[in-house]
Amino acid sequence: MPNMSDDRQDYPKHYCGVFGIWGNPDAASLTYYGLFALQHRGQESAGIVTCDETKEFHTYRGMGLVSQVFSGDVLSRLKGDMAIGHTRYSTTGSSEMSNAQPLTVDFYKGRVAIAHNGNLTNASRLRWELEQNGSIFQTTVDSEIILHLLAQPIDSESREQTNLISALRKIEGAFSLVLMTGDALIGVRDPQGFRPLSLAKVGDGWALSSETCAFDLIQAEYVRDIEPGEVIIIDKKGPRSFKLYNEPQREAFCIFEHVYFARPDSQIGGRSVYNTRVEMGRQLAREFPIDADIVVPIPDSGNCAALGYCLESGIPYEMAFVRNHYVGRSFLQPSQLIRDFNVRVKLNLVKDLVRGKRVIMSTIQLSGAPPAKPTSIT
Amino acid sequence: MPNMSDDRQDYPKHYCGVFGIWGNPDAASLTYYGLFALQHRGQESAGIVTCDETKEFHTYRGMGLVSQVFSGDVLSRLKGDMAIGHTRYSTTGSSEMSNAQPLTVDFYKGRVAIAHNGNLTNASRLRWELEQNGSIFQTTVDSEIILHLLAQPIDSESREQTNLISALRKIEGAFSLVLMTGDALIGVRDPQGFRPLSLAKVGDGWALSSETCAFDLIQAEYVRDIEPGEVIIIDKKGPRSFKLYNEPQREAFCIFEHVYFARPDSQIGGRSVYNTRVEMGRQLAREFPIDADIVVPIPDSGNCAALGYCLESGIPYEMAFVRNHYVGRSFLQPSQLIRDFNVRVKLNLVKDLVRGKRVIMSTIQLSGAPPAKPTSIT
Amino acid sequence: MPNMSDDRQDYPKHYCGVFGIWGNPDAASLTYYGLFALQHRGQESAGIVTCDETKEFHTYRGMGLVSQVFSGDVLSRLKGDMAIGHTRYSTTGSSEMSNAQPLTVDFYKGRVAIAHNGNLTNASRLRWELEQNGSIFQTTVDSEIILHLLAQPIDSESREQTNLISALRKIEGAFSLVLMTGDALIGVRDPQGFRPLSLAKVGDGWALSSETCAFDLIQAEYVRDIEPGEVIIIDKKGPRSFKLYNEPQREAFCIFEHVYFARPDSQIGGRSVYNTRVEMGRQLAREFPIDADIVVPIPDSGNCAALGYCLESGIPYEMAFVRNHYVGRSFLQPSQLIRDFNVRVKLNLVKDLVRGKRVIMSTIQLSGAPPAKPTSIT
Amino acid sequence: MPNMSDDRQDYPKHYCGVFGIWGNPDAASLTYYGLFALQHRGQESAGIVTCDETKEFHTYRGMGLVSQVFSGDVLSRLKGDMAIGHTRYSTTGSSEMSNAQPLTVDFYKGRVAIAHNGNLTNASRLRWELEQNGSIFQTTVDSEIILHLLAQPIDSESREQTNLISALRKIEGAFSLVLMTGDALIGVRDPQGFRPLSLAKVGDGWALSSETCAFDLIQAEYVRDIEPGEVIIIDKKGPRSFKLYNEPQREAFCIFEHVYFARPDSQIGGRSVYNTRVEMGRQLAREFPIDADIVVPIPDSGNCAALGYCLESGIPYEMAFVRNHYVGRSFLQPSQLIRDFNVRVKLNLVKDLVRGKRVIMSTIQLSGAPPAKPTSIT
Repeated sequence: MPNMSDDRQDYPKHYCGVFGIWGNPDAASLTYYGLFALQHRGQESAGIVTCDETKEFHTYRGMGLVSQVFSGDVLSRLKGDMAIGHTRYSTTGSSEMSNAQPLTVDFYKGRVAIAHNGNLTNASRLRWELEQNGSIFQTTVDSEIILHLLAQPIDSESREQTNLISALRKIEGAFSLVLMTGDALIGVRDPQGFRPLSLAKVGDGWALSSETCAFDLIQAEYVRDIEPGEVIIIDKKGPRSFKLYNEPQREAFCIFEHVYFARPDSQIGGRSVYNTRVEMGRQLAREFPIDADIVVPIPDSGNCAALGYCLESGIPYEMAFVRNHYVGRSFLQPSQLIRDFNVRVKLNLVKDLVRGKRVIMSTIQLSGAPPAKPTSIT
Repeated sequence: MPNMSDDRQDYPKHYCGVFGIWGNPDAASLTYYGLFALQHRGQESAGIVTCDETKEFHTYRGMGLVSQVFSGDVLSRLKGDMAIGHTRYSTTGSSEMSNAQPLTVDFYKGRVAIAHNGNLTNASRLRWELEQNGSIFQTTVDSEIILHLLAQPIDSESREQTNLISALRKIEGAFSLVLMTGDALIGVRDPQGFRPLSLAKVGDGWALSSETCAFDLIQAEYVRDIEPGEVIIIDKKGPRSFKLYNEPQREAFCIFEHVYFARPDSQIGGRSVYNTRVEMGRQLAREFPIDADIVVPIPDSGNCAALGYCLESGIPYEMAFVRNHYVGRSFLQPSQLIRDFNVRVKLNLVKDLVRGKRVIMSTIQLSGAPPAKPTSIT
Repeated sequence: MPNMSDDRQDYPKHYCGVFGIWGNPDAASLTYYGLFALQHRGQESAGIVTCDETKEFHTYRGMGLVSQVFSGDVLSRLKGDMAIGHTRYSTTGSSEMSNAQPLTVDFYKGRVAIAHNGNLTNASRLRWELEQNGSIFQTTVDSEIILHLLAQPIDSESREQTNLISALRKIEGAFSLVLMTGDALIGVRDPQGFRPLSLAKVGDGWALSSETCAFDLIQAEYVRDIEPGEVIIIDKKGPRSFKLYNEPQREAFCIFEHVYFARPDSQIGGRSVYNTRVEMGRQLAREFPIDADIVVPIPDSGNCAALGYCLESGIPYEMAFVRNHYVGRSFLQPSQLIRDFNVRVKLNLVKDLVRGKRVIMSTIQLSGAPPAKPTSIT
Repeated sequence: MPNMSDDRQDYPKHYCGVFGIWGNPDAASLTYYGLFALQHRGQESAGIVTCDETKEFHTYRGMGLVSQVFSGDVLSRLKGDMAIGHTRYSTTGSSEMSNAQPLTVDFYKGRVAIAHNGNLTNASRLRWELEQNGSIFQTTVDSEIILHLLAQPIDSESREQTNLISALRKIEGAFSLVLMTGDALIGVRDPQGFRPLSLAKVGDGWALSSETCAFDLIQAEYVRDIEPGEVIIIDKKGPRSFKLYNEPQREAFCIFEHVYFARPDSQIGGRSVYNTRVEMGRQLAREFPIDADIVVPIPDSGNCAALGYCLESGIPYEMAFVRNHYVGRSFLQPSQLIRDFNVRVKLNLVKDLVRGKRVIMSTIQLSGAPPAKPTSIT
């Protein structure tokens, strides 16, 4: 058996965005806007798969931002009342078209598409076992493993979701999924609930999204969060749910969603991310009161916490860093010309505001984990 | 004589960005970064012209953002120690490649390039007179008129700048200019001083820029603002200045630079734009005290004024609008799908924050003047 | 069992081009030039996969012509001494990036890439059987079926090529293949020998190509045709061959290669395609002598046959149709403007030459088979 | 006065293509197809200017082939019944967007656009004189000089074309021009008649073209060649002509049009280029009879002459060189990989045909003149 470490799996892909629509004639457009609202969760690639009334699937994926990948022409070709979409986080290593999602395959029961936010901790072992049994792999994304498991024939087919349950019980780790078959839109959140996934009503149909800010944009009505370990199947009979495991699992929501990754206008667990961050800033002021003249946030991740610190401490808030809204990945790097350029180009200091003052700066310190360009925007 | 109204001149072009470098081997790259910092002043087109030691000019212009127009390849071909650049404001009407600046022409004294921020109020009359005397026009930008005037032979050539003075005294309106000949970089600010223009030291050379935030990015040292009516000529003898008119002119700086157009981290007239805006918010609170629960800025133009209002009034600051950083001009418009989409896609409200509260909102109300997409970013 | 007809498989893909290099440090560049010489066999997509000394594979594929898909940058990233490449024929139906070849997969023995010219007559049945056993399919190309078969574990692994033999004996139809593993370049021609495949020496290494014209371009020395039913394995031990079946199979070379598809400067079976076509024209003149003033070829497919007819009959040759070399797929179609535009734009008649004359025209009449734009060039 | 030599004017631009339409609602589309048929006369850039019923001009120009520059969207925006177009020959030196034609300017009488095939021998002197009088130049093409001359006010304006005559009498050299004002389409051929220009009827309107092959494509009916020194003005009063000079001028048609540059399906002076070339081959056989086994043309320039030689001498014709139709300017050059690559990639030899034979090869030997990539196709 080969090395089981997941070194081929790149760490920060955990932060993708997933979205799905059931029962709306503008499924592709709504998914486009949904992905647009989830753009902060992944800027490397974007993709949409739709399913029309003849159960034909229509796919379009590309490298880059949602607004770069899709045109009006493309969206008009993505016909159907059902759609799922994905935005992928940017990484250096495996930035390839073949890893763009959603992934669509044919198997013995028909066609299925999948979009995945998270990472499987037992991916290497599962892949090795599947290969031993004759499976071939065309990508390095975990979604392909899930699809292979889903395609395994099982003895009893008494219930519709048996293949799915069988597959999902084999995987471990973080897996907020949306899947689409010819008949149904399916949402899955792993038993620990590492990544968020929410449900909304949009007209007579339904939407699933990594974050609720996507519902706001398309004027969908937020219903509830998908629960850890829940599988929700939405088809013409309406939504119905079951749990992957009967016994309760340890929950383990990822703190980075609250402090860093989610948009402040999203709600997670019924609470706005904005308020959570402000409250953290307040708590910081209570735990670590500092005598200072001003509090300066590093935009945008530090904005809310800085505000909370100010509200609690009474120290004035000063937005001394001005952010350049045009920084993007196509930006040319100066070789030796300019010191500290990467910081400077994104943020410029209003020097008047800080000269001679005692300053508290507020930012997110990601100790260890995803160090890569987290503030990269375009 | 034809209709003298300036209807072919599109109003909002007043807000372009101009930049120039003298005496630096990385002139093209520094101009690229300078334009990048001035990107908020114009997103329609960008251009750079350099001049090398053989007095050869090298030009590159294109439609779109600075980072889209220029590549490393292009910059490396723009050789020379001297450069000027321009970012052009986006408008619907005359968005054409042929109107991109800087404009370069040959005339009897050699070659000259020009970049212009502003508009001439007597443009139609000048153009008509020039055409009557045999001039041809290839663009609709005012810069071409200035170049025609500059190319008119004059009797006495006793002083180097005689052609220039003769031309500049004929034009009226707003004209912050940077020009480049084979020998010199020239900056001009109109007698009223409508648009800003500043001088900085960069290594052994010099820089001119519409706003000082460009100096911060390239680590140039701000020296002073160019004065209204001043012409500054920078060549191997160093910078020297003279005034267009001996008698003082009425000054008339454009208030929109302070309240809306300039970046808050720029200094105009020795005062940071940030502080000016905060002070305006404070003054508003003094003049119009309102009993409210929170003050909410419309980002980004309302941020500073809202903060000033809060500081003066003691009412808490809440960033209840979350801005989507990925909105750009390539974004697809939904036809009837979503109400108020254009507002919604840029700004989403954190509803928790405002529900049941008395809210003061802070934004820039542009009464009359430049209504076109001022908050368009990418 | 579902409908077994191959309606998802598009007919004219039989005419792809395949190419491979073993043992040359410029493997990617040589493959690029090889594919360029095979461009007439497929203009829809092109791809190259290389393998470096660490057995790492490097892949690049794209839609369009070889010269459009690959840049110098891309080629320099395709490192290694071994490479295979593919040009895919253009069809309307399934023109998708996901169908571009070569296809690369991981399986239990490692990594393998494949490029395929031909079509499998039992593809539907094989695909159905594989799906019943849990296989998933991501494309609609036959190559994926071959890879699934190759990945099936077999009991005895006594000989290196056992997996391969086992897979190849299951498929039926036309399959000129080049495969690449971490160790070897492999060429296969089906037992009937429907499609061509040839071997050449290039420096100390080896090349495989659909047609010999590719060898001329890269100055490789033609050695011989791969025989029907032959599998040739090229690795550090040199090339060695074996036959798929011990008993001889009925040979069935496709006549369209000789009369239409191959380039006239290629050799098939030791005979130049040019001479074959001239000889056919001569034979036609002997069997069907016609009294005429001139013989006019429809360029380029009718050129050689027309010449043969002239040489045999003594009737003068007139190139009365002039071909426009700039016609390509991006050309705009006039709606109602111009009658017979599609013919006219490619070929214009020199009317002087035919006015009042009895004319024999020479072209290829493709009865039935591949009707799609066979003369489409760019 | 500066150096008068024309070193800034690049030699091979003489071979551009010009085209014009008057009185057809599909003026832009017909010009597009006309330019497409003239593509062999210039591949660097292409442009079309139309004029609608409100005398508004609509312009689109770009680098590259006609089919690359124009899209259906672009053509539909080029409204009007009148249009002129230009294809520019490729050169290394001054390949810039700013040199693309047609050139459009405003002058005191209104707006005029120009497209020019040829070069002015007194361009430097004219330009110097114009600059001395205050003219500015934005391009390096001769057309801009003609426009400056055209814009000079003249004393008596008794006749409509006075400005034009005055300008045309000042220029020397080769100038096949098409011009467009708000009212008229104008064609001009210089007094020597260096470059071709022809007139055709298209529906109720008229067309002007560098070569008659463009008329064939758009099904216009060839009327006659424009005569040397003729100015033809086409407006609502119909076409009318006058001569630039009363006295006859020495005619000097460029032989390269017949032997090399024009398409064989064009007619020049009432004679097909094809026949001229065949006749030249016949004459060569009569003047230089050689005892040989075969005659082999270098395609495509040598095809007709080789055929003439064969017809006269009785020696068989063999198309032993096979041309690759996919060679274009984007092709990557191998550094040291392959000897004689540039020849090889365009033409491959069918070695069987020439082995052991005495071969006469037919090509165009351009002694001196335009050596640059004349066979470059795409």
